[in-house]
Amino acid sequence: MTRIRVDLNISLDGFATTTDQTPENPFGDDWGRLTRDYTATRTFRERVLHDTSGEGTTGLDDAYAARYFDALGAEIMGAGMFGLHEHGSDPDWRGWWGDDPPFHIPVFVLTNAARPSIEFANGTTFHFLSATPRAALELAVDAARGGDVRIGGGAETVRAFLRDGLVDDLHVAIVPIVLGRGIRLWDDLRGLEQGYRVTSEAAPSGVVHTSFRREAV
Amino acid sequence: MTRIRVDLNISLDGFATTTDQTPENPFGDDWGRLTRDYTATRTFRERVLHDTSGEGTTGLDDAYAARYFDALGAEIMGAGMFGLHEHGSDPDWRGWWGDDPPFHIPVFVLTNAARPSIEFANGTTFHFLSATPRAALELAVDAARGGDVRIGGGAETVRAFLRDGLVDDLHVAIVPIVLGRGIRLWDDLRGLEQGYRVTSEAAPSGVVHTSFRREAV
Repeated sequence: MTRIRVDLNISLDGFATTTDQTPENPFGDDWGRLTRDYTATRTFRERVLHDTSGEGTTGLDDAYAARYFDALGAEIMGAGMFGLHEHGSDPDWRGWWGDDPPFHIPVFVLTNAARPSIEFANGTTFHFLSATPRAALELAVDAARGGDVRIGGGAETVRAFLRDGLVDDLHVAIVPIVLGRGIRLWDDLRGLEQGYRVTSEAAPSGVVHTSFRREAV
Repeated sequence: MTRIRVDLNISLDGFATTTDQTPENPFGDDWGRLTRDYTATRTFRERVLHDTSGEGTTGLDDAYAARYFDALGAEIMGAGMFGLHEHGSDPDWRGWWGDDPPFHIPVFVLTNAARPSIEFANGTTFHFLSATPRAALELAVDAARGGDVRIGGGAETVRAFLRDGLVDDLHVAIVPIVLGRGIRLWDDLRGLEQGYRVTSEAAPSGVVHTSFRREAV
């Protein structure tokens, strides 16, 4: 049974997308601080950096990182996460991830500007479409062929799916830092907890993993 | 050694002060939801409700509630927490807590409108003053006679003391609800974690207790 999932790193003050990017520092400083415990995991090093040395943290943060990659059949992301806010005018832009993007599944990028699909040899395909969350999800569920669908980010895209009640599993890794700037995950989501079971676990890193899980009906 | 302490219940989206009060519902619905796990503790029932039946939850939430009352010598609170936003024009207003306020120590209420001090038989005294956080703290530290000083709330008052670097111990009980309205604790506190050791524990209730502790220098 396909589940619709979200995994995000957020700061204590709720920022999930950072906004201090510059041409010289395309990810910004805040992004590194927000994701440091995730990118330190062995799973991230293996799956995203192709580092087979076995280095990286294990334990709770790594267990959540492994779940992040598990059983996915398709992904949906916003235009900003693919880089179209900075690179949308470049017809040759193929995303941040080089020739081996860490998806290996169909990825649907929500954008109002039409672009041709991009196919990578490793199974990653990017499709670009202008659609409501619900319509995009129908396509992604079909493409996932029984696997789960992840709403990858950023914060505004995730919030649109949460507001429409489309997410079954929301996992946030709450990092013990106060960023004070960026885009908040929780805005306009009053009462989100209703209909979910909410649980939390604290990792030795200081990260708190909070999960909203909708029970299957 | 006197430490300056804060204990607050906040929602996942960071709201520490609720704003849905009406004349008919002077605390509002959100306040009850924000404090339900705290007010369910045996310590709260004993210390605030004078319920000696032994009922109430024990465990982690109760352990933090007990610490909340421990070793205090004085308290500072904002005008709103004492009720002056609603009742400031009533010269006979003596706070929300009846004849046996759960403080038993000197309490300094920050307000621009002068009021005479109020003394209760149980050791609680309310003093009203217009002062900067630092100046109010000097008075409170003296009055605490070696005990700790708690900055009681609300969110804006606490934030003013945090911004000025005056707080040694901040404990937030993060309640797994999204309120979507109120006054946020974390605004304008970028980098707050610097200079603190930040730790978290998850309680079975779903509440996450996050503590910022400044190491003694």
